[in-house]
Amino acid sequence: MNVPASTPAGAARPLPGPPSLPASLRARRTGVIPGLKYRPVAPADPAKAEEVDRRLEAWARELDLFPPAWKGDFAGFQFGRAVVLQHPRALDLDRLTVAGELLLAENLVDSCYCEVEEGRGGSRRDLGARLLMAQSAIDPHHGTARSQEQWRLGMRADGPLRSYHWAMKDYAEFATPSQTGRFVHDIARLHMGYLAEAAWAETGYRPEVWEYLVMRQFNNFRPCLSIVDAVDGYELPEAVHARPEIQRITALACNATTLVNDLYSFTKELADDPAHLNLPQVVAANEGRGLKAAYLESIEIHNRIMESFEEEAALLSATSPLVERYAQGLSDWVAGNHEWHATNTHRYHLPDYW
Amino acid sequence: MNVPASTPAGAARPLPGPPSLPASLRARRTGVIPGLKYRPVAPADPAKAEEVDRRLEAWARELDLFPPAWKGDFAGFQFGRAVVLQHPRALDLDRLTVAGELLLAENLVDSCYCEVEEGRGGSRRDLGARLLMAQSAIDPHHGTARSQEQWRLGMRADGPLRSYHWAMKDYAEFATPSQTGRFVHDIARLHMGYLAEAAWAETGYRPEVWEYLVMRQFNNFRPCLSIVDAVDGYELPEAVHARPEIQRITALACNATTLVNDLYSFTKELADDPAHLNLPQVVAANEGRGLKAAYLESIEIHNRIMESFEEEAALLSATSPLVERYAQGLSDWVAGNHEWHATNTHRYHLPDYW
Repeated sequence: MNVPASTPAGAARPLPGPPSLPASLRARRTGVIPGLKYRPVAPADPAKAEEVDRRLEAWARELDLFPPAWKGDFAGFQFGRAVVLQHPRALDLDRLTVAGELLLAENLVDSCYCEVEEGRGGSRRDLGARLLMAQSAIDPHHGTARSQEQWRLGMRADGPLRSYHWAMKDYAEFATPSQTGRFVHDIARLHMGYLAEAAWAETGYRPEVWEYLVMRQFNNFRPCLSIVDAVDGYELPEAVHARPEIQRITALACNATTLVNDLYSFTKELADDPAHLNLPQVVAANEGRGLKAAYLESIEIHNRIMESFEEEAALLSATSPLVERYAQGLSDWVAGNHEWHATNTHRYHLPDYW
Repeated sequence: MNVPASTPAGAARPLPGPPSLPASLRARRTGVIPGLKYRPVAPADPAKAEEVDRRLEAWARELDLFPPAWKGDFAGFQFGRAVVLQHPRALDLDRLTVAGELLLAENLVDSCYCEVEEGRGGSRRDLGARLLMAQSAIDPHHGTARSQEQWRLGMRADGPLRSYHWAMKDYAEFATPSQTGRFVHDIARLHMGYLAEAAWAETGYRPEVWEYLVMRQFNNFRPCLSIVDAVDGYELPEAVHARPEIQRITALACNATTLVNDLYSFTKELADDPAHLNLPQVVAANEGRGLKAAYLESIEIHNRIMESFEEEAALLSATSPLVERYAQGLSDWVAGNHEWHATNTHRYHLPDYW
């Protein structure tokens, strides 16, 4: 896999002020983070992305997922372009659209339940209860006839619940029960990650780097990579998927691509909420270093995880065409997600560290 | 399956005082809850239970899982007798012992992290962060060489982490990767249930009955029933286990046996903490009824779920010997768990409602 030449850290321009202050950061750069290990991909086919967006919009409107006033924010996310980039070998537009539905649902739950600063109802205090109800939207209740009927009605209570519930129904149309079970587990992981992050925010705990990385393995893009085989029209059988070495390359790919998010959204998070946890902040706090050095070290941490993924995925791919196909799907998602981050100038700008 | 004759609810003796006050409740009865649907089983072989306890004690001592002062409480739990009753067809003592290790670990995490009243360090505020670390003890971190080494050291930090981590290692010696993955998912469900319950306690939220039942499907004995096939020495393949109808009978069995716990521990919980959520309390609060009527209705809710399990399990069992074996394992666990609750006079007494 191709790694673009980086500007050496030594060539970085000096910062004009104390590096821990958002105002000191001139967030002007866009494009690729210098020194970041990634695989470049072709731009998304705009017609395909537009068609997925058109279908997603109809789906969201039909289910009344969010107020019209939020449309601009969600358009800025570019769901269609995201899934077209992340699933370049998708079997068809229907599956790509369901990938988009799941992505939209995940963002809606995050935005409305978890992100206190966004002002859409997010709250830390009852997050555990709300995320459990959200989990149950994809992991159905089995009780008495009455409690099941009330649960079914309850799952229509708000946009986040409706989006999880109906996106999952659409996913189960083509995914096997093992693939849907895998996804449900990965959403449980995600919710646990949200809850850990919320607990740290609540208590003001400053995690060590390894603790942050453990949390980030849960608060992670993993549910998006969980569906790569189903979207491409095949199944990596659960007995293979569950093997420790396959679990490991899955986690490595998911962790690498999640840290890419930390790096691309660093400047935005610093501006929105200077206390927002991300890898550079945690490295800076733990190692008593300025944000610039911590940012550059965070790139290195990402690169080492990415290298482990690439090396181990290559070894395993040599053992089985099916594993090779799966590892390619993971790599495609990671590469497409990088491209999305590097080009989504609506959301992201880079610090001026080089 | 056999259902013992019940004392009709109409024959209940009047309570001497207001039913919502713990002091009003004469908790004298032991034995089986009248009217409860259950399958009686033979008592546990005491020699077998004692041998499992001996091994568990050695294991706990070797890993320094809890201070010697807690030994009495854990002896009162009767882990050996519990797993001997719950897994009557266990392949061997080694597997029974691992079932006991997992059960002990689950109780240790609950006691030390979740149960604020027990005074062993439980706290609601940072529970999300602690349960994430506990989850990672069985769902390993994959990062850089350094973060992995620090994670390995971090997983030795306390008894709950050590117990999860090492019990899981022992389980993975005979369970397939799919079976361990299933268990990891079920522990994630359990942790989400703990977190929802803690959030409700924190905000003072009084759930509706269906909401309580949804939460209780997560805060549930499910991880214990997750291992029935592995402990019995075979595997229900994941592709079968994941099928919606198998997921449904699994959830029904798990829910029925979890509500048995609500019913048997009702008096103890009322005495320890009158605000403790359990099904009778939730029914009473929602339907404006006294605790006695709510308790009797809770028995009915349990019975309806138990009947659904038995009927649907019988239908599915007719379709495949492997499913029949699995359904039998679920039923065995439910029956053994009932026997454990009905005879564990160290922990439980019944209200005097009949």
